[in-house]
Amino acid sequence: MPDANRGVVYLGPGKVEVQDLEYPKFELEEQGHRPLQHGVILRVIATNICGSDQHMVRGRTTAVSVPFNIACGRCRNCKAGNTGVCENVNPARDGAAYGYVDMGGWKGGQARYVTVPYADWNLLKFPDRDQAMAKIRDLAMLSDIFPTGYHGAYTAGVGTGSTVYVAGAGPVGLACATSCQLLGAAVTIVGDMNPQRLQQAASFGCETIDLSQHDNLPEQVEQILGVPEVDAAVDCVGFEARGHGADGSQHEQPATVLNSLMTLTRSAGKLGIPGLYVTGDPGAATEDAKVGTLGIRIGLGWAKSHSFTTGQCPVMRYNRRLMMAILHDKVQIARNVNATVIPLDQAPQGYADFDKGAAKKFVLDPHGMVSA
Amino acid sequence: MPDANRGVVYLGPGKVEVQDLEYPKFELEEQGHRPLQHGVILRVIATNICGSDQHMVRGRTTAVSVPFNIACGRCRNCKAGNTGVCENVNPARDGAAYGYVDMGGWKGGQARYVTVPYADWNLLKFPDRDQAMAKIRDLAMLSDIFPTGYHGAYTAGVGTGSTVYVAGAGPVGLACATSCQLLGAAVTIVGDMNPQRLQQAASFGCETIDLSQHDNLPEQVEQILGVPEVDAAVDCVGFEARGHGADGSQHEQPATVLNSLMTLTRSAGKLGIPGLYVTGDPGAATEDAKVGTLGIRIGLGWAKSHSFTTGQCPVMRYNRRLMMAILHDKVQIARNVNATVIPLDQAPQGYADFDKGAAKKFVLDPHGMVSA
Amino acid sequence: MPDANRGVVYLGPGKVEVQDLEYPKFELEEQGHRPLQHGVILRVIATNICGSDQHMVRGRTTAVSVPFNIACGRCRNCKAGNTGVCENVNPARDGAAYGYVDMGGWKGGQARYVTVPYADWNLLKFPDRDQAMAKIRDLAMLSDIFPTGYHGAYTAGVGTGSTVYVAGAGPVGLACATSCQLLGAAVTIVGDMNPQRLQQAASFGCETIDLSQHDNLPEQVEQILGVPEVDAAVDCVGFEARGHGADGSQHEQPATVLNSLMTLTRSAGKLGIPGLYVTGDPGAATEDAKVGTLGIRIGLGWAKSHSFTTGQCPVMRYNRRLMMAILHDKVQIARNVNATVIPLDQAPQGYADFDKGAAKKFVLDPHGMVSA
Amino acid sequence: MPDANRGVVYLGPGKVEVQDLEYPKFELEEQGHRPLQHGVILRVIATNICGSDQHMVRGRTTAVSVPFNIACGRCRNCKAGNTGVCENVNPARDGAAYGYVDMGGWKGGQARYVTVPYADWNLLKFPDRDQAMAKIRDLAMLSDIFPTGYHGAYTAGVGTGSTVYVAGAGPVGLACATSCQLLGAAVTIVGDMNPQRLQQAASFGCETIDLSQHDNLPEQVEQILGVPEVDAAVDCVGFEARGHGADGSQHEQPATVLNSLMTLTRSAGKLGIPGLYVTGDPGAATEDAKVGTLGIRIGLGWAKSHSFTTGQCPVMRYNRRLMMAILHDKVQIARNVNATVIPLDQAPQGYADFDKGAAKKFVLDPHGMVSA
Repeated sequence: MPDANRGVVYLGPGKVEVQDLEYPKFELEEQGHRPLQHGVILRVIATNICGSDQHMVRGRTTAVSVPFNIACGRCRNCKAGNTGVCENVNPARDGAAYGYVDMGGWKGGQARYVTVPYADWNLLKFPDRDQAMAKIRDLAMLSDIFPTGYHGAYTAGVGTGSTVYVAGAGPVGLACATSCQLLGAAVTIVGDMNPQRLQQAASFGCETIDLSQHDNLPEQVEQILGVPEVDAAVDCVGFEARGHGADGSQHEQPATVLNSLMTLTRSAGKLGIPGLYVTGDPGAATEDAKVGTLGIRIGLGWAKSHSFTTGQCPVMRYNRRLMMAILHDKVQIARNVNATVIPLDQAPQGYADFDKGAAKKFVLDPHGMVSA
Repeated sequence: MPDANRGVVYLGPGKVEVQDLEYPKFELEEQGHRPLQHGVILRVIATNICGSDQHMVRGRTTAVSVPFNIACGRCRNCKAGNTGVCENVNPARDGAAYGYVDMGGWKGGQARYVTVPYADWNLLKFPDRDQAMAKIRDLAMLSDIFPTGYHGAYTAGVGTGSTVYVAGAGPVGLACATSCQLLGAAVTIVGDMNPQRLQQAASFGCETIDLSQHDNLPEQVEQILGVPEVDAAVDCVGFEARGHGADGSQHEQPATVLNSLMTLTRSAGKLGIPGLYVTGDPGAATEDAKVGTLGIRIGLGWAKSHSFTTGQCPVMRYNRRLMMAILHDKVQIARNVNATVIPLDQAPQGYADFDKGAAKKFVLDPHGMVSA
Repeated sequence: MPDANRGVVYLGPGKVEVQDLEYPKFELEEQGHRPLQHGVILRVIATNICGSDQHMVRGRTTAVSVPFNIACGRCRNCKAGNTGVCENVNPARDGAAYGYVDMGGWKGGQARYVTVPYADWNLLKFPDRDQAMAKIRDLAMLSDIFPTGYHGAYTAGVGTGSTVYVAGAGPVGLACATSCQLLGAAVTIVGDMNPQRLQQAASFGCETIDLSQHDNLPEQVEQILGVPEVDAAVDCVGFEARGHGADGSQHEQPATVLNSLMTLTRSAGKLGIPGLYVTGDPGAATEDAKVGTLGIRIGLGWAKSHSFTTGQCPVMRYNRRLMMAILHDKVQIARNVNATVIPLDQAPQGYADFDKGAAKKFVLDPHGMVSA
Repeated sequence: MPDANRGVVYLGPGKVEVQDLEYPKFELEEQGHRPLQHGVILRVIATNICGSDQHMVRGRTTAVSVPFNIACGRCRNCKAGNTGVCENVNPARDGAAYGYVDMGGWKGGQARYVTVPYADWNLLKFPDRDQAMAKIRDLAMLSDIFPTGYHGAYTAGVGTGSTVYVAGAGPVGLACATSCQLLGAAVTIVGDMNPQRLQQAASFGCETIDLSQHDNLPEQVEQILGVPEVDAAVDCVGFEARGHGADGSQHEQPATVLNSLMTLTRSAGKLGIPGLYVTGDPGAATEDAKVGTLGIRIGLGWAKSHSFTTGQCPVMRYNRRLMMAILHDKVQIARNVNATVIPLDQAPQGYADFDKGAAKKFVLDPHGMVSA
């Protein structure tokens, strides 16, 4: 018999609690109790805290991985591999996720038990349960940041011998830098204003630039590479970016990362943009920014024939191959992002620490199975 | 013995003249008389007037086509097919063109004779001179608008069965619409505010939207397709865009096309952006726009997982295959863009008419060989 | 209440009959009455006779198209778009089809009613029933030959301006030639030994070569193109090929098409091979051929850096976009393959005529709805 | 003043000598003293012995790398990146190389001095001479086996998380296995019959299968992977393949590798075929094999929807990015292939040792600069 359900509940801006929850059902409450005929209910082995998302890795008799995206597997976008913008699982717009505002009304995955719809499509089964449990810290990253960072690197055209600049050394940035190395990059440079996070990036072989000390990025890149430009760049920051240098960091400058990446990237280069940009931002500083309109130096990108790929990562496009790389020891994603396991009940503290800039990726352990 | 040289000279904003010119030399005057060891001097059979560029189609014993880009064929970008941003032919930045400000100091091609550097790389030889002369109006389009429009369609992912919206019915827009059809699009919709240009688009099977009459693009698209979105969209307008609707058209709104394309394009769709965006625009209305910074609703594109490809078309990537399509009667590009032949000496009148919105693509005929 | 079921039954080599059949069930009899939980039973509006396959186009309240492949939509191959080799629907090997030996034991589709498993994945819904009925002869081709021919052209790299040689002017060959034109080929050359089929190819603008009259293919190609090679080639014949020329046609020469395509295709070109090659051929002339081993001049292909794509077409990768091209009048596939509607009960005659080389694609009309 | 020229001369089957040679000229003697206007004469720092080819790495004031292919940089194939089948440098057929029979009559590169035609296109300049000299053993591999092995892996679709089988543990096989790891493969399995070469493969993390001991490859693969198939396979052996198992190895079986790869590769998988297959093989055992016709089980590949890429590697497509990976310590190609430096005058001994199966890649050092 399963233990009682319990999980993280969002109470309002900055406020989360762990509460007792009803046991999951095969229905989608917020869409009129729509029944979920292809669903499964999973016992969660490990789940993550993400800056922008809340999602999960779970398992029952076998272990399985769950992408943070929810997708139907039947619509045109799913059939084309674009599971991040599934047409059927969110009445409001294309694309859905667990426990996230305006993303379809699905229950969050930071809990002991969770319902996964279209389970035969969404779940990735690990080949062997024991092997999976031995690497569960790494495999937990398959739900969100590892595919997301990889998507950024991949869509930026990173490959054998590339030089890359990764903007941001948070968990997605570190996962992206890890992915750049896995894809064969010659040099991976990570920029951030948080010294602990930069130290984490340096710990696995990245070059780093401390943006709180330097406001001339091309100059810094030239000191590393001999030329002031990189082949490819990835924006792992998104719209909450701040300015560079001693002063700049006080002010939110939502387009600063994108604009600096266009300066940094060589002609004919590509930019991957997994960092979140929103359509509406009530807390923004300007009227334009409130509707997601930013001052972008598109003329510069055009002059350099840049390409840009945006949007939520379609996790399913990448999770199987990344799982293989993890299971065969080709990548140490948990170590690189400093995955740190905490009990489910400490999730609120995890949120708080993460918000303060801890150079950690928190893994929640709702049944005490990971620590064991 | 060749006749005396003569060509279009740019005298300042809005002012061009046809003057007698020195016969071309194998050197690049404005880069310190740098010798051009791989150059040829061509007798020009046909050349074009383009809103943004001035470039050519020429021939001597055999007929050849010249891309508007100048490229060296030896640098990393050229080797990768990115001839629009060649690293060697413009000391100021990557990318060069004939007769264009800040593009390397090369003499313009609207003349009787012109020097082509790196000729063995840059020239496309037509298989047969007589066959080429019979289709010279179409082949003249290989230098600029046909590859440019095709590049826009191609990078927007247009293929068999696509629905496409092409912003702008100027020569590039009409060439792009033609390319969409050649690529197998199911429905090609062209939007503009100029009724003659829209009529031209309708004449070869495009659906059209008159933006001077309608300001709700998705509604118009829905009337045509049954859904308010297209699979792919191409911006053939660029930074000189104006607002839509009865009032909007009075004001320049440089990002309005890009922003409307994000609204119009379905999730996971792609946007091709061959329309010019500049790094510096002295005549712009705002400080931001003067340095090429525009208010772009990137949050919307991100939510829909859009991809964007910008920049000058790498003509060489496409011109051979488009030549084949022309020579074998698979496309009527001259008819579709309303190619209109005028003598070289009437070039200033051509510029003036084009500036007033004539639904024509002017082909210059410096030796009277096209009209013959 | 539906009318009684009735359909084509295969009685042995060369022998088919139309018989009364049991009404379809939601189970797979030949796999131990395995229940089909995602299945639907369709009333068939139109279905086809294919040389190698038997499959269907069907509909009930709305009209839908069914690929000849059966696929689960959940396995690794399906998720990657390789629905022709689904891992779950045939216990014997990857890949399944309706009514075909060794392809999973599924009931054939040349019947009044048929069960479609994994229906939410396999079916393609037409946007509008009336519009679909008006073009049902064309849409019927979406189940088999149109995607198959398109796959051959696409994987051979056919695109704007290509020169292509299509081996075989049977229904797949004609569908491939149609696809080459849709993809923008400059010249499409079709070779066969059947004058009626060649006439059919010529009727929509293909060049033709009568292989019963000529045994020097490169010479024939040179007369058409000016050069003895094409950019791309497609094998729409497969292992039942015969030799060329006046004598050759008497003997089966199973590798003759592949070998001639390597001679005909230029260096760095690609070969699409949708024509069927089998793993076991009891009727073959040699021991090698009986196990599918053919004498292939691989050294020639290697010297020319050729690439080869083989296998059953993954219909789902193409059927939506081809449907759009049909519905918007961009392609006349039924006319080009000479689609000929006959009642279900005349299917045996259709098989016989097809076997004799009729230049027709037979469409079966089990409810008299197409003829109406 | 340069020292006298000296180099390896091919005297006939199995017979090479180092002789004094004329100093190179800017002409192509065997094509009627055709002048080479874009050529350079290089002092060779390091060059290689390859089983099938003879080519070089050379340098003068700066260090440069030379692909074994000779290419013009102006023809259609070169412009498309297919430099392995350049149309202009070999009158007999597309594609040329240094010092190789029927490949254009170019002088070989195993010498102190060599002429490189179209030098501005063919040469890859190292960023820094001292840095290059420090890694010259690795960089010497850029001329032949490293790009060749990488091409095999890349065209087989090897990427993050792939399982791969590499047939052959000679220098190209080892370079391919190295490339698989660089591309992120989860498991790289190498098969050969030479225990020393297999040991070399195992030394850098490959799984190995000794084909002299085992004739059931799928069974061996299953012991390693848990399944009897791999995602991708590369043929680094070519037409001189021998049978497997205790007996089979006595007999040459030119198609045995290709046929076993089709058995081993999963459905929808790809095969890279950089191993040489020839159009004419005077020493072959059968009449078919003498003209390059082999008994290939194409029916099996077809049933599994395999794709095949053949041909000489277009070195230029890969050498820059592989150079970057070497210079930034992302790959240890010299160590992995056991690069062994010998003086030029010992080249005949190197040939003999290599022919006997030494697990070494011989690097020739004509000026004593590498050993220094």
